[in-house]
Amino acid sequence: MDRKKLRDLGIQIGKLPPGEKNCITDVKGVRVGHLTLMKELLDGEVVRTGVTAVLPHGGNLFREKVIATSYVINGFGKTTGLVQVEELGLLESPIMLTNTFGVPAVTQGTLQYMLKNNPEIGDTTGTINIVVGECNDSYLNSIRLFPVTPEDAVKAIESASEDQAKEGAVGAGTGMVCFGYKGGIGASSRVVTNEGASYTVGCLVLSNFGKREDFRYWQYSDRTEEPDYLTDGSIMIVLATDAPLGERQLKRLAKRATIGLGRTGSHASHGSGDIVIAFSTAKTVSHFSDQQQEVIQQIREETTVMNELFQAVTEVTEEAILNSLTKATTTTGRKGRLVNELPYNFLEKSGVTVESE
Amino acid sequence: MDRKKLRDLGIQIGKLPPGEKNCITDVKGVRVGHLTLMKELLDGEVVRTGVTAVLPHGGNLFREKVIATSYVINGFGKTTGLVQVEELGLLESPIMLTNTFGVPAVTQGTLQYMLKNNPEIGDTTGTINIVVGECNDSYLNSIRLFPVTPEDAVKAIESASEDQAKEGAVGAGTGMVCFGYKGGIGASSRVVTNEGASYTVGCLVLSNFGKREDFRYWQYSDRTEEPDYLTDGSIMIVLATDAPLGERQLKRLAKRATIGLGRTGSHASHGSGDIVIAFSTAKTVSHFSDQQQEVIQQIREETTVMNELFQAVTEVTEEAILNSLTKATTTTGRKGRLVNELPYNFLEKSGVTVESE
Amino acid sequence: MDRKKLRDLGIQIGKLPPGEKNCITDVKGVRVGHLTLMKELLDGEVVRTGVTAVLPHGGNLFREKVIATSYVINGFGKTTGLVQVEELGLLESPIMLTNTFGVPAVTQGTLQYMLKNNPEIGDTTGTINIVVGECNDSYLNSIRLFPVTPEDAVKAIESASEDQAKEGAVGAGTGMVCFGYKGGIGASSRVVTNEGASYTVGCLVLSNFGKREDFRYWQYSDRTEEPDYLTDGSIMIVLATDAPLGERQLKRLAKRATIGLGRTGSHASHGSGDIVIAFSTAKTVSHFSDQQQEVIQQIREETTVMNELFQAVTEVTEEAILNSLTKATTTTGRKGRLVNELPYNFLEKSGVTVESE
Amino acid sequence: MDRKKLRDLGIQIGKLPPGEKNCITDVKGVRVGHLTLMKELLDGEVVRTGVTAVLPHGGNLFREKVIATSYVINGFGKTTGLVQVEELGLLESPIMLTNTFGVPAVTQGTLQYMLKNNPEIGDTTGTINIVVGECNDSYLNSIRLFPVTPEDAVKAIESASEDQAKEGAVGAGTGMVCFGYKGGIGASSRVVTNEGASYTVGCLVLSNFGKREDFRYWQYSDRTEEPDYLTDGSIMIVLATDAPLGERQLKRLAKRATIGLGRTGSHASHGSGDIVIAFSTAKTVSHFSDQQQEVIQQIREETTVMNELFQAVTEVTEEAILNSLTKATTTTGRKGRLVNELPYNFLEKSGVTVESE
Repeated sequence: MDRKKLRDLGIQIGKLPPGEKNCITDVKGVRVGHLTLMKELLDGEVVRTGVTAVLPHGGNLFREKVIATSYVINGFGKTTGLVQVEELGLLESPIMLTNTFGVPAVTQGTLQYMLKNNPEIGDTTGTINIVVGECNDSYLNSIRLFPVTPEDAVKAIESASEDQAKEGAVGAGTGMVCFGYKGGIGASSRVVTNEGASYTVGCLVLSNFGKREDFRYWQYSDRTEEPDYLTDGSIMIVLATDAPLGERQLKRLAKRATIGLGRTGSHASHGSGDIVIAFSTAKTVSHFSDQQQEVIQQIREETTVMNELFQAVTEVTEEAILNSLTKATTTTGRKGRLVNELPYNFLEKSGVTVESE
Repeated sequence: MDRKKLRDLGIQIGKLPPGEKNCITDVKGVRVGHLTLMKELLDGEVVRTGVTAVLPHGGNLFREKVIATSYVINGFGKTTGLVQVEELGLLESPIMLTNTFGVPAVTQGTLQYMLKNNPEIGDTTGTINIVVGECNDSYLNSIRLFPVTPEDAVKAIESASEDQAKEGAVGAGTGMVCFGYKGGIGASSRVVTNEGASYTVGCLVLSNFGKREDFRYWQYSDRTEEPDYLTDGSIMIVLATDAPLGERQLKRLAKRATIGLGRTGSHASHGSGDIVIAFSTAKTVSHFSDQQQEVIQQIREETTVMNELFQAVTEVTEEAILNSLTKATTTTGRKGRLVNELPYNFLEKSGVTVESE
Repeated sequence: MDRKKLRDLGIQIGKLPPGEKNCITDVKGVRVGHLTLMKELLDGEVVRTGVTAVLPHGGNLFREKVIATSYVINGFGKTTGLVQVEELGLLESPIMLTNTFGVPAVTQGTLQYMLKNNPEIGDTTGTINIVVGECNDSYLNSIRLFPVTPEDAVKAIESASEDQAKEGAVGAGTGMVCFGYKGGIGASSRVVTNEGASYTVGCLVLSNFGKREDFRYWQYSDRTEEPDYLTDGSIMIVLATDAPLGERQLKRLAKRATIGLGRTGSHASHGSGDIVIAFSTAKTVSHFSDQQQEVIQQIREETTVMNELFQAVTEVTEEAILNSLTKATTTTGRKGRLVNELPYNFLEKSGVTVESE
Repeated sequence: MDRKKLRDLGIQIGKLPPGEKNCITDVKGVRVGHLTLMKELLDGEVVRTGVTAVLPHGGNLFREKVIATSYVINGFGKTTGLVQVEELGLLESPIMLTNTFGVPAVTQGTLQYMLKNNPEIGDTTGTINIVVGECNDSYLNSIRLFPVTPEDAVKAIESASEDQAKEGAVGAGTGMVCFGYKGGIGASSRVVTNEGASYTVGCLVLSNFGKREDFRYWQYSDRTEEPDYLTDGSIMIVLATDAPLGERQLKRLAKRATIGLGRTGSHASHGSGDIVIAFSTAKTVSHFSDQQQEVIQQIREETTVMNELFQAVTEVTEEAILNSLTKATTTTGRKGRLVNELPYNFLEKSGVTVESE
């Protein structure tokens, strides 16, 4: 019942060392908050959903923006806010995750939260760009009933902390399914050390994709389980780093998430909204300033650091996805459906030592 | 008081003939609906905003999708739904326009409308992608008070008709400002005739951009008017055509809207969300089908038709913007602000004959 | 000495069945030609390079174009011709591969070849777009001496056949290095069968990337070998299919090559030109035609076929890369350098049965 | 016979002041070199072509790179080198312009020039990315005979100077045609002054596009001239600035060239390779460095400077195109063809004062 992170099962992804919490919150300042919604309704309808908020720092996100980018691995998704992120290379809101039909409510709630804290927005200064990503949890959750409210978004933001984030069937991950097992929120981190400098790369995913037979470890199962009920599906991948990187450089990192995703067994199915959002906390860009120019420090890409950061991205993405599986717990859903948690015996048989549970 | 289209003032843009209504609704099947919100509130706050809906056809937009694309001239904007349009080249909802902070409510309302008409969405089939564009009308309208509701979006959709669309300070255009004058909704169309075939290109814009001194006709004014109070600003450009075009071809058309925009005097300012959404009504792609393949008819680009379609796009975009100005009426707004309608004497002095008013 | 394809060593990648030749030439009509250049010069300089040509069909490639696209995984490369491929979605020349500094000569030779066969080009009709990709073989080959000539390109084209392509240290692959072992040309194919229809996906790669320790099978080596001398490096990936796909759909396939590449151990290093070019042979688009419209048949993406094609792409890319290694032979190069062929014992130890050699 | 710049004819484009030379060389350090080829051959074949080189600075361009980007307005063109410019945001060679079939020779010559000056390239360090743009001058020039040689490229580079660049039928512009009149090379510049800072934006174009009737000033002609013989065509636009801008910011500038182009009358025809390459001279990025990070100074986009730079781009692009027409001289070509220079009386009739000639 006490579900573990992959690494606590004795399985290690890649070669770089993880940060202290093996979580996106290892990137100093980054906070994660969850709001989980579970409720039984009439006629077999149930609520199994929620909201997850990733905050680049603990200050005023509108007034102190971070450099950011996005990369669309596959765009069958409803993520909002990317147009402006691409134009300006800046993030000025928390990154919110929820179910597909929860996007308007979460956008609204996050907007209201930001307006409350910034009375100048939409009055004496311009507007604000809210970023919300999503996956479709309608196998378990009654999304047509719109269980997520604007207030839920605010609660998720307000609960954010720098602790190790809760993983599995929590927040936006409450109703998600990955490789036919219960998926949801997963996180991981890596530390890159290079010539005296040390950079952390963190990842948080919302996993909701994959056919069971495509799962890399499925070959180690007894393969007698019930056939898969889900075909397509999506993943949201949030990358954070304290390495000083420009938006073009961050996009190069974001593209490498594709490789971590692919190594779990995904081929980025047609019906997926597989979307990466990446930001750097190394510098904040002030909304208000009397300066005409900005001074930006950036990694020289010719150094070996860049390749190590790329490697870190592939590792954290793969491990965060696997953590979303090893941490998630069996969940019942609408129409009496059941999605089992990933059995650990799979991993035992893969030839690596697994701790006794 | 009775405001006119540019052409009724004796001024003609370009060489191609307009369609019968000189409107996006000249593209057979395309419908436009407006919901206008005007209200005086306490403390100088007022509602000057609304919703405009462009429907590619009169049938079920989810079950019969149209080929579509988008092009971001400048991305300082909050348009939602473009990720999926780009991935799949399909539009499966109305194109909704509103004010910046109205996007969540309009997305929510449109989503509910589509769910009501398609009980299978989010249950036995996947989800749906809602496209909503916006401009910031906060100079005249109290956007921080969120005057637009989900129901307003439904009303705009339900009021859509194939008639010549209302223009100026109507629907989403109620509170918009263009070149320092009252802007908002404008429309235009062109007919391309080539070797027996005839294609219509239609445009509807939501204009909210430009410094007065950048306006192409400003040189003909007496230039004694009050200085400009607005700097940046945006435009949403919707292009429709019945020419059989694939999504790549439509994107080529969409890019040419930049030229029409530029000819009015815009240089696509930093703070603008200048976004084009283009679709073709020539073919619908069914959501449900037992076919493995789709047969698509497309213009051969080597023919002269393609260039004529490009020319049509530059002409309709420019004329639609000018129509948004010549049709809009003087409007008061929050904090007692006043935005004047464009005086026609400008145009007289530009050297073309203007009808007596 | 007689080097084998991976599959002949008893190792299988993925689940889909390969075509008859397990080569890009399983896609009917596709031809591959190689021109290999090996020569010892003075002062330790040597020629270890060549040209590889992939022809979409055996007819006139300019007059009968194929639908095509490209995808840049990482763009530290000098591939030429992609601008037009992206604008028009068409390929009108062979796809040529060579070393980095051979690009101008190979472009020139291919251009001359095409002009000779099409006297109208640059006279009564427009020009032609030549596509040439490259990797940097300067570890083994004296690229500064420009050993490749325009005539070599013509020879590679003229030698093209529908036979199973030669792999390893041949053609453009003569001097390439992959994961610290001899790499170069590799090929593979998959057959997707779905509701009575059968589609082939073929791949040809030019592999020249990767640190030894990143190689997925390196964990099975005794790891006592000499340390790696190369850091960054590139791969060219050519995908062919007879499935009827538009250029947007082909780009979706092309993006999935990233996953096949990642599964071999690559993280797409900073210094890589990792570039995918994909085309469909299902339809040719005539340069000359008196038709105003083109009829195009396309896979309906909602079907399961699309996911199977995606899976096929990941599998052929991974296997083609591994084939480039298992087929390549030990090669000496400039400055007395030596690059060993991949020992098969690696693969034995990976836990799969390897045939006795 | 002595052709003038537009401004010397009394016509002014836009509002910002030009630099001293009204040329791209007003951006300090930027150099332009031309090599013009004119020769009569047998059978009505003639050489009317050449090479133009734009150098970002007078030092070693490989070792001291400049921040750069490109933007493809329409991609029916054969420009080479853009893949790497987009990936890295850096330019490490001169920007070379020539005719379409001269691209391989000019790439080869520029490569050899750079190798000669950098013995480490392709030996102890990586390779180099050469950028070459082109237009199709085959109406006047016998491009099928490949009159441009690698040595011509070197000569163009070596002749580069900071003087006001020659314009019209010179260098790569020797055989180009614009709006049915003789086009070719044109240049212009603007100075933006903002809160004590002063930035220069310079432009050099190679114009080869447009139907006569699309020319903005054509309405002022007597329109009795012979009908137009050319339909499609291209333009290369090179933008330089000393404003400190990152590659994303430069791309925002580059996109605005579309507007300047559009204002001359172009609608970016189907058959055009309308391509913008932009760079900033404000900072050089060293190829060799022992630093792990780079310090970059960038304009804060929220300031008014960005809009003024956008405006400068639209103005210099439009004026450079018009200068290519007012400076070019009547030219004969292959098959006895004649392309007239633009008569100045057009411009007189446009309502502006033209100096007596």
